[in-house]
Amino acid sequence: MSNVDYNCIFCAIVARRAPAAIIYENADALAFLDIHPIVAGHILVIPKKHARNIFDFDDASGNGVMRAQRVVAHALRDAFAADGLTIFQSNERAGGQDVFHYHAHMVPRFHGDGLMARDGNDRTMRLFVRTHPSREELARVAEKIRAAVKDA
Amino acid sequence: MSNVDYNCIFCAIVARRAPAAIIYENADALAFLDIHPIVAGHILVIPKKHARNIFDFDDASGNGVMRAQRVVAHALRDAFAADGLTIFQSNERAGGQDVFHYHAHMVPRFHGDGLMARDGNDRTMRLFVRTHPSREELARVAEKIRAAVKDA
Repeated sequence: MSNVDYNCIFCAIVARRAPAAIIYENADALAFLDIHPIVAGHILVIPKKHARNIFDFDDASGNGVMRAQRVVAHALRDAFAADGLTIFQSNERAGGQDVFHYHAHMVPRFHGDGLMARDGNDRTMRLFVRTHPSREELARVAEKIRAAVKDA
Repeated sequence: MSNVDYNCIFCAIVARRAPAAIIYENADALAFLDIHPIVAGHILVIPKKHARNIFDFDDASGNGVMRAQRVVAHALRDAFAADGLTIFQSNERAGGQDVFHYHAHMVPRFHGDGLMARDGNDRTMRLFVRTHPSREELARVAEKIRAAVKDA
């Protein structure tokens, strides 16, 4: 693996030196459970090669991440009978980024889940509050999603 | 162009049958200003080939969209001296989708812009309220960003 940042927790997950509930991987990208999920099944998709964020991302990483998103999207829909999916990705601290290795959040969505609000013609997204499940609960959720992964 | 949906407003923009402030395009993707921006410079990136959302997206479209995101990210940062960038993408109505042609929102971010909040250890995203600029204002913003585009 080139471009490993030895101080980066996500590089450590890629190298299997840090634990994670891994859901899916391809040559360039890895998908695993967020340990502070907005809802059960909240997944992070990252490039294996270290990139701070969208500003220093290479083509192979971009393609691998996008392919992983598609595979994971179907697995989440199938595993949870999700009605939809919201994906977000934060760049730099002002953009909401806390871990400085590119990661896209994939959040299963349900009608009436309260994460989205409308006010007249304005569409608003609100209050993505994090939860704190146990490692055992994360493992159960991961197994459920892995069973639904169909590689592209 | 294959797979055109003649009832789709974003397909109409791709075909130049509907107006849009276009910022950038490559073989597979197009970037243009959202007409109801969260902040000035709010851009949509879409595949040229019709796809409802992440659930029926092909590889070429994914790669083109990701490449467009990288080019647009740099242009937004340069044009507005943005401190960061938040990207989000909604799938199905429950996921926040209103226009059923895949689109990723790219929102320039600034320290203290009030779009993000923290409450103890919880990170929250809140109240993305839309604005309603005139066509003239959109044209001015588009010109500013286009001047900063450096193709990959």
